[in-house]
Amino acid sequence: MPVRALWWEDGRLAFLDQRALPGRVRIVRTRHARTVASAIRTLAVRGAPTIGVAGAYGMVLAQREGRLGAKAAARLLGSTRPTAHDLFVGIATVQRAWESGDDPLAAANAYRDTVVEECHRIGEAGARLFRGSPKVLTHCNAGALATVEWGTALAPIRVAARRGAKPFVWVDETRPLLQGSRLTAWELEQEKIPYVVIADNAAGHFMSRGEVDAVIVGADRIARNGDFANKVGTYEKAVLAREHRIPFYVAAPWSTFDPQARTGASIPVEERDEEEVLRAGGTRVTPRKSRARNPAFDVTPSRFVTAFITPGGVIKPRAVAAALRRRAGRT
Amino acid sequence: MPVRALWWEDGRLAFLDQRALPGRVRIVRTRHARTVASAIRTLAVRGAPTIGVAGAYGMVLAQREGRLGAKAAARLLGSTRPTAHDLFVGIATVQRAWESGDDPLAAANAYRDTVVEECHRIGEAGARLFRGSPKVLTHCNAGALATVEWGTALAPIRVAARRGAKPFVWVDETRPLLQGSRLTAWELEQEKIPYVVIADNAAGHFMSRGEVDAVIVGADRIARNGDFANKVGTYEKAVLAREHRIPFYVAAPWSTFDPQARTGASIPVEERDEEEVLRAGGTRVTPRKSRARNPAFDVTPSRFVTAFITPGGVIKPRAVAAALRRRAGRT
Repeated sequence: MPVRALWWEDGRLAFLDQRALPGRVRIVRTRHARTVASAIRTLAVRGAPTIGVAGAYGMVLAQREGRLGAKAAARLLGSTRPTAHDLFVGIATVQRAWESGDDPLAAANAYRDTVVEECHRIGEAGARLFRGSPKVLTHCNAGALATVEWGTALAPIRVAARRGAKPFVWVDETRPLLQGSRLTAWELEQEKIPYVVIADNAAGHFMSRGEVDAVIVGADRIARNGDFANKVGTYEKAVLAREHRIPFYVAAPWSTFDPQARTGASIPVEERDEEEVLRAGGTRVTPRKSRARNPAFDVTPSRFVTAFITPGGVIKPRAVAAALRRRAGRT
Repeated sequence: MPVRALWWEDGRLAFLDQRALPGRVRIVRTRHARTVASAIRTLAVRGAPTIGVAGAYGMVLAQREGRLGAKAAARLLGSTRPTAHDLFVGIATVQRAWESGDDPLAAANAYRDTVVEECHRIGEAGARLFRGSPKVLTHCNAGALATVEWGTALAPIRVAARRGAKPFVWVDETRPLLQGSRLTAWELEQEKIPYVVIADNAAGHFMSRGEVDAVIVGADRIARNGDFANKVGTYEKAVLAREHRIPFYVAAPWSTFDPQARTGASIPVEERDEEEVLRAGGTRVTPRKSRARNPAFDVTPSRFVTAFITPGGVIKPRAVAAALRRRAGRT
């Protein structure tokens, strides 16, 4: 059975609690927008495209609960995490339906279908970049868990594998919350794609030994000029990839592109609770009085990006602005 | 009381079990070379200069136990970890005394005194680089725990602080074994030098925001051309420092310099048990079948090094070979 991060079921939103993975497959079902907001805030539901869809269904639940107006519900769900652009697109999509008297559930379902379909197209568009037996490094989790189905960064690898390629994946563990060693490893197990987990620190070592052929990551928000935010550590891998002349790809659906952001400087970077860094595997590891800083994302300038893999094909960073203008002209 | 990693006491080697820190200060006392070898292998005793001194005292214990000859004892202690050059210098120093009928303990004590004195001189030589209120990033632990007393990377920061500077330290947590969040944080607590712990992934983010003024690390082995091995992840920080035009310093006593290594290509890189990566804070975090790769070190080319801080002063990478020739001529 393919991995799905969330789905609609009998008037409820069902989602995998990603904090319990890989040890336990825990499914949560809720009729409450507040529970959805809390799941997004605590990373039970995570990954930019997935939280966009969760936000959309959260709006459906809020409308059915009847306690909040559309604006207040959008505020509740939108205040959970600041960086992923998809969250605001998902919420706004259902808010428009709600305010104009259309069916919120139909809008949320259509939004989900679009995200899933776009991820599938990302896989199709990007697969040709991973022919043969490439060794591909990825950071964080940009698989089905992060995008409802298919994935962004993992989609081209999956499609390439189904077409007969033999990709191997270097999985950055992705401290502090270990989305790589917990989630990406778990997804690759399901897909039987060979991988090994490495400490984030080791990526540069393997690049310097010629053991990385490409890097591919997802994104949380992409500015018009091609600067993008993604899980903290992405920027380090991008700088290292350029140092080693290794292609660096960013895969994302259109909801991740922010036409309002001229450059990366206008992308808000969430700083999360220091406890995530002070602990490892649930155990406090630092001295009692230690403090930590915990930016959840970093911003990588577009000059480090070889290409974006989008539902519309593989495009250079300098082509992002025009692609967004074309899309705006169409809607 | 200043931190000391190990000391000689009533015919025994006493050492802090660094695996227990920061939660517990556990002191081990032993009369057995085999226990010393095991402590080095398991990282109960760690840090290149410290394991050099531990190796020296391990030779003293072996001679007193009388079960092994000098060569076999050197093999036992030298087979524990391959990368740190200091280990082999410490062992060879006592082996020479043993084989020529000199007092092994006197040789080990003299070796320890030299390492401690050299670290103190590193502090004096490097302190001027950290005047004012610099924000300094360090990776792994290159404090007193790693060098018996004083430290290498931390020594100039300590001396600068005692002279009235107000340094602030960004402590890379240093996965997989968290020597930064466990040991460097603990040492900085003792010294009351302000610091915060960050995920290794976040160093690039803070560099890109202009919040890192300098990087300083220790080393496990330095080749004649200035290439050097240090804890895995050091290379990533070096590449990022150059990208941001941030000075990158490497502090080390002479025992870390390997006159036999022409370049970094001849430095052996230890690969440790994958369990270290598959676990975090003692807890298994990956799926059951996951595999990991775990290089303990990486090699940074000399072009990324602004300067080496040595007991003989602050020198450019291209001056390393001449400094080593001068030292060889003197002995």
